[in-house]
Amino acid sequence: MLEASLTAMTYDAARLAPMANAIRALSMDAVQAANSGHPGMPMGMADVAAALFANHLKFDPSRPDWADRDRFVLSAGHGSMLIYSLLHLTGYQRPTMEDIRNFRQLGSPCAGHPENFLLEGVECTTGPLGQGLAMAVGMAMAERHLNAVFGDDLVDHRTWVVAGDGCLMEGINHEAIGLAGHLHLGGLNVLWDDNRITIDGSTDLSTSEDIKARYEATGWHVCECAGHDFDDIERALEEAKNTARPSLIACRTVIGKGAPTKQGTSATHGAPLGPDEIVGAREALGWHADPFEIPAAILSDWRDIAARGQEASGAWAARLDASPHRAEFQRRMAGDLPQTDALNEHIAELIQNPQNVASRKASEIALAAINPAIPETIGGSADLTGSNNTKAGEIGAFTADDYAGRYVYYGIREFGMSAAMNGLALHGGVIPYGGTFLVFTDYARGAIRLSALQETRVIYVMTHDSIGLGEDGPTHQPIEHLASLRAMPNILVMRPGDAVETAECWQIALEQKDRPTILALSRQNLPQYRLEAAPGNLSARGGYRVKSADAARKVAILATGSEVGLALESAKALEDQGIGTDVVSMVCTELFDEQDEAYRADILADNALLVSLEAGSTFGWQRYTGPNGLNIGIDRFGASAPGKDLFSHFGFTPEAIVSQIQNKLNA
Amino acid sequence: MLEASLTAMTYDAARLAPMANAIRALSMDAVQAANSGHPGMPMGMADVAAALFANHLKFDPSRPDWADRDRFVLSAGHGSMLIYSLLHLTGYQRPTMEDIRNFRQLGSPCAGHPENFLLEGVECTTGPLGQGLAMAVGMAMAERHLNAVFGDDLVDHRTWVVAGDGCLMEGINHEAIGLAGHLHLGGLNVLWDDNRITIDGSTDLSTSEDIKARYEATGWHVCECAGHDFDDIERALEEAKNTARPSLIACRTVIGKGAPTKQGTSATHGAPLGPDEIVGAREALGWHADPFEIPAAILSDWRDIAARGQEASGAWAARLDASPHRAEFQRRMAGDLPQTDALNEHIAELIQNPQNVASRKASEIALAAINPAIPETIGGSADLTGSNNTKAGEIGAFTADDYAGRYVYYGIREFGMSAAMNGLALHGGVIPYGGTFLVFTDYARGAIRLSALQETRVIYVMTHDSIGLGEDGPTHQPIEHLASLRAMPNILVMRPGDAVETAECWQIALEQKDRPTILALSRQNLPQYRLEAAPGNLSARGGYRVKSADAARKVAILATGSEVGLALESAKALEDQGIGTDVVSMVCTELFDEQDEAYRADILADNALLVSLEAGSTFGWQRYTGPNGLNIGIDRFGASAPGKDLFSHFGFTPEAIVSQIQNKLNA
Repeated sequence: MLEASLTAMTYDAARLAPMANAIRALSMDAVQAANSGHPGMPMGMADVAAALFANHLKFDPSRPDWADRDRFVLSAGHGSMLIYSLLHLTGYQRPTMEDIRNFRQLGSPCAGHPENFLLEGVECTTGPLGQGLAMAVGMAMAERHLNAVFGDDLVDHRTWVVAGDGCLMEGINHEAIGLAGHLHLGGLNVLWDDNRITIDGSTDLSTSEDIKARYEATGWHVCECAGHDFDDIERALEEAKNTARPSLIACRTVIGKGAPTKQGTSATHGAPLGPDEIVGAREALGWHADPFEIPAAILSDWRDIAARGQEASGAWAARLDASPHRAEFQRRMAGDLPQTDALNEHIAELIQNPQNVASRKASEIALAAINPAIPETIGGSADLTGSNNTKAGEIGAFTADDYAGRYVYYGIREFGMSAAMNGLALHGGVIPYGGTFLVFTDYARGAIRLSALQETRVIYVMTHDSIGLGEDGPTHQPIEHLASLRAMPNILVMRPGDAVETAECWQIALEQKDRPTILALSRQNLPQYRLEAAPGNLSARGGYRVKSADAARKVAILATGSEVGLALESAKALEDQGIGTDVVSMVCTELFDEQDEAYRADILADNALLVSLEAGSTFGWQRYTGPNGLNIGIDRFGASAPGKDLFSHFGFTPEAIVSQIQNKLNA
Repeated sequence: MLEASLTAMTYDAARLAPMANAIRALSMDAVQAANSGHPGMPMGMADVAAALFANHLKFDPSRPDWADRDRFVLSAGHGSMLIYSLLHLTGYQRPTMEDIRNFRQLGSPCAGHPENFLLEGVECTTGPLGQGLAMAVGMAMAERHLNAVFGDDLVDHRTWVVAGDGCLMEGINHEAIGLAGHLHLGGLNVLWDDNRITIDGSTDLSTSEDIKARYEATGWHVCECAGHDFDDIERALEEAKNTARPSLIACRTVIGKGAPTKQGTSATHGAPLGPDEIVGAREALGWHADPFEIPAAILSDWRDIAARGQEASGAWAARLDASPHRAEFQRRMAGDLPQTDALNEHIAELIQNPQNVASRKASEIALAAINPAIPETIGGSADLTGSNNTKAGEIGAFTADDYAGRYVYYGIREFGMSAAMNGLALHGGVIPYGGTFLVFTDYARGAIRLSALQETRVIYVMTHDSIGLGEDGPTHQPIEHLASLRAMPNILVMRPGDAVETAECWQIALEQKDRPTILALSRQNLPQYRLEAAPGNLSARGGYRVKSADAARKVAILATGSEVGLALESAKALEDQGIGTDVVSMVCTELFDEQDEAYRADILADNALLVSLEAGSTFGWQRYTGPNGLNIGIDRFGASAPGKDLFSHFGFTPEAIVSQIQNKLNA
């Protein structure tokens, strides 16, 4: 039935040409009105996009959250007027024409680059080049996984990407397509806007690559089309759909197509065409409507597209209603966790049988409880499975032969992994987590920022979180990383200090529907100091007293992760000298900052010397300790030696800490 | 003459085999002694490396700083025992056998990963995968450039790289080889340790790529060899040397070659073999010497290699002595700047004719003075030339047809560009600078960290440094970037506020022989407030008073970059109300922190309300303002709108600032 309706609705060249020109007109007019933006890409890809939306894309503008819709990703996000035009023309509630008139103005959902949190139909935030395509890989992975779990009736859709030369030149492209090719993600189709122009000019300035050969070398199907010939576009789209491999369609286009003197040049890339050129373009395109007006017949053609998707989404809804999987499928897509006591039971078990293990190991045993209880987790590692301890709970590998698997061997692709996790989370129905060393957040930072900006539930399992990793030396030892991640908005940076806190942090991370979490975990073993049952999740306060001063309080040590145990040892020595000392585990400063003022003031006791203790940069700790406090950290690069020797070398021993505190008290 | 000596010295298989086993023995014994490290790669690549050093590499252990030496880069840095073995065996002063015995111990130059600042002969710090190869691209670029400038007599050498599967899987590999292929860097030869093993296991777990086809698609020559067959290795090395394109040599090897039960498996990758396996390996290799002892005949064979290089370096020294370019060549290789008043004259001109321009434009006009006066600068941009304003001073493009050019069109390759700049700087003889948007330091962060760790003079021209960039929206607006870079050791983060400060910052950056600089520059125009000649470079203090309080000092505003002008406007309004206000331009906090305590205390006047003002994260500013100060910044993501509207929206107007300060004073 779906097939029949598809055939009936096919749009031919005669019908598509003016529809595509509507995109061109809106794009050039909106950019001109904003006096800022990128007309070249939307005008160049208008024909391909019109053909895709009219004849192939499975979507229903009246149900933008339809779980089985095709995902459309505008990886070349600077061409945002393309997607705004498409959403408006096909009948999404937003953007309205007024929104488009206010392109790039404060408050308009038509932002300079598409933002997933501003408009339905924008599947992800794009603009940072290469990441849209890499997120699409994650979406296609989620689709295959959910298909394996729930079957064709509920999950069977494609992921379409529009990418530019920039997306393909970025390093992340290599990681993304390597993963997609390896996993045989045949539902992933990339429409490459092959216009041979970048900002600086011709692509010849900086590249000589045979892109099609590179994609073929990476296991992709490659075809091409004349990007302004609707019959040829149709042929290529059909070819791409009929291959079991992910496919690249090289769409040979003219950037700024329609601009009489500027088309085909970098002048159309990122600046308004100017009034004269726009007059000429209207003439060349035969477009005589006023700015922001779409002739009724053309708009009607656009709106008619929706019928196909509405029929399909209705049929799908009926299948869902009849499905035995309905409740579970809806729960997962809503992002609600299942009812489970698995983590609480795990914590109770830890209280009974304390584990003096590395927090990476504590994370593994937490995952052994989590993964069986929460079937939507999808784990993985960038080739550090045994170091990140990310494979636990009897989950099998996610492979081209078994998409039901829940563990991804991401390969040595930190950035690609992180972007794929964003795509997994944005698709919905799964909760991705993945590991590498904390220091290599540097490689993945572009994607971590997009996790935060896009408000995705992605859990980064970042092990080897200090000089405590030892011999691998300064290239592998994080120093500034905790500070640099804490400076980022909307992300939780958690550094648990023992096995109980690690489990608590996992619990918190899983509950964050709209923000990512970094779990910073130790390589080295840590003593378990949480030995009594607590009334709730103590780590949820962000910072709490692990030990209160016995003698009159003179010192409060604010420590994180592996340094909490050290703080407790130091406090013991201080108490022996009659110096009352609090130890606060500052497990997550973002959560601490969200507590009420009274709580924070109580923890940051103003009658005490406030000491921060963290084996990393002291940058930022002064906001808690004040100028008269003491900041014990490491503000230089590390060194290669056994972890214990390094802790001693950098002054992270009870003796050295006590001595520093005494000196400060006596000063 | 060089040719003749090369032929005479050729080492054949019979001689090389035991020499290679010396590498294997040292590697497995050192890793075992350290109880930590990576024996698999050195044992697998021992044959290839022995052949390369014995018969091809141009080097002189007695003159490790010989400018025309071949550069050897161990991109797979975890296999550090390979290079330590090679340096020791060929007769470098360090590492001694004692150093090797102390592999991975505190104080040994034989760190877990090779560090350029610990050992001569280690051309760059490697370990973070993919970057060694990408730095080698920069070294090969420097070689071609200096060859074009100084001729074959002084500069004509190769760049050799040993890379593993991890280096090739990382995204940066795509960027690096794309650049090298485009630039026809025929002197670059990559020896790929094709052992089909990664940490997680077989490469089949995560990749299906045809690597050779990918390299060919990118303009590389590709050949292969049996990595344990010396004749075949020799053939392949000759083939690679005789091509005008950069070449990849796929060396088919067995990881951990010689370990009787573990070779060929990931068990040899990153852990000691264990005593039993080592006994077995000794047997298998016919190696009967004690640990850390090299039989005299074998050591003698290794040491004899040096003669070839010594002869060549001697001949080269004679050519240099006779060269009319000698003084200039030596100056450049020493990293000394030429005598020039160009920047001082430029600043004097600015005082005469103030320029109210964006600091990116101020940077361009500074470069127009710098580039003609300092011929060793090599500029570029990651496809944002017109936005970063990096092409100035009549420098031509560096292309495959003209290596004398000084401007690199790096393409959309931020990470590759930054790593190449590290390579350019490490090679010596050039001073690289390159641009992108500040927000995309996220893409390049792995390389920026290696600039800092390796103590390289790399100048990052990072424009569009705040919400002031406007309409492009939150993906393009830095928030946490200044803070996150300030947390990194050994890098100057400079945010000049007007044209004079921008020129001063360039002056300082150029003078930093052993650290990189980030110049954070505005998109929008800024008023020039430095209108009087100064006794020296005021920005060199890191922070200094642009304006002292007129009325009794009650407030000191610490501002950076585009907010200094705003601080001056706000101060004027405060003074009108009788509130004496200092304005400090905190142009570089790292330099400010290096000033003596009296200077810092004077600037951070303790009788004043200290206010930080920066259109970015407030994270870290509390170290100056204290807990009772006021931090005006942006601790959330930005938005899409014209820059002026955003400044107003986020409270960056004199009215809003004055109001906040008044409220704080009255509180």
